[in-house]
Amino acid sequence: MSATTIVLATHNAKKVPEMRAILAAAGLNIDVVGLDLHPDAPDVAETENTFSGNALLKARAVAAHTGLPAVADDSGLRVDELNGMPGVLSARWSGSFGAATGDKDAANLRLLLDQLADTPAERRGAQFVSAAAVVLPSGEEHVVEGVLAGHLTTEPRGANGFGYDPIFVPDGETRTTAELSPEEKNAISHRGIAFRALAAWLRDHL
Amino acid sequence: MSATTIVLATHNAKKVPEMRAILAAAGLNIDVVGLDLHPDAPDVAETENTFSGNALLKARAVAAHTGLPAVADDSGLRVDELNGMPGVLSARWSGSFGAATGDKDAANLRLLLDQLADTPAERRGAQFVSAAAVVLPSGEEHVVEGVLAGHLTTEPRGANGFGYDPIFVPDGETRTTAELSPEEKNAISHRGIAFRALAAWLRDHL
Repeated sequence: MSATTIVLATHNAKKVPEMRAILAAAGLNIDVVGLDLHPDAPDVAETENTFSGNALLKARAVAAHTGLPAVADDSGLRVDELNGMPGVLSARWSGSFGAATGDKDAANLRLLLDQLADTPAERRGAQFVSAAAVVLPSGEEHVVEGVLAGHLTTEPRGANGFGYDPIFVPDGETRTTAELSPEEKNAISHRGIAFRALAAWLRDHL
Repeated sequence: MSATTIVLATHNAKKVPEMRAILAAAGLNIDVVGLDLHPDAPDVAETENTFSGNALLKARAVAAHTGLPAVADDSGLRVDELNGMPGVLSARWSGSFGAATGDKDAANLRLLLDQLADTPAERRGAQFVSAAAVVLPSGEEHVVEGVLAGHLTTEPRGANGFGYDPIFVPDGETRTTAELSPEEKNAISHRGIAFRALAAWLRDHL
């Protein structure tokens, strides 16, 4: 019996083995390939204002292009004091200021800390959120969301991870997600939660 | 009969005559002075996350310092697509990036346009909001809010006003608030609405 193949809508080489491992752990005989195998897949602008909406946009575009089941995710940081922003704008929060520095991640993080400069510890709650969407060749769609709750530090700490990891401390932890090992982070991360929920759905629907 | 004097918690010389005119138009025999006459009044950090909270903080501090009735306001821009932000952070939205440019207003506006680069016209709703607070020597307090609803352009237009005026078009207008004359803007502005409501309250309570 040949394995089903699904396409993960990402150019990030690290995400493909992560998804493979999650599907295998769920007992699924599914192969995962990234967009490196489908280089002419359309690059979809993330124009929706929800994580779920953007994940679906990307999964639909890749499913339509490849004819294969397609999975996509959209992730970001919700900050209580900013009414849930930067949210879907997490990766572009510092706009042209960040682009001009050549290190967008560091600029986004610095801008967020500046905006929260007067915010006391008890108001620094935040959540990492990831939406994972799948679109099947039949047209059937499913989206799930994973959330990691925590709070923000006042200065960056740690060298692992990316994005806002150096200022995010998960509930029950004292270390930032940039001070956790990749294994520790994957075990609790918003994307891990979303992808495991998606695997459970795929087991019943593929 | 000598006029009552109230202190307006501002170092902005333009706000004092504006408030004087509004109180006179409401038929009140009240004199208004600014913080230039009380230069040693405390400079209060705007640490609350509501306009009303920050206006009250400032009015309380100036009332306690001067022993006179004190009025303060806090204003900003709520953007629908950003869940109401920049809000109370409107004047500091671009953080150290804006401070480094030497023109914070222009930097805040540029960052906001960058963040909304993918936001279509039908999702560009926004409101200018102003909270005006008064604290009497008796300890009695009152806060009112004025709102000017509209939408955001994709490029700045006009040379009047300040802050986000060049990208804000009030409902029923085609011009930005930076293209309105100061008189036209005062007649409809969030701060004008709040100050006129405060004048009505002062007429009954002073």
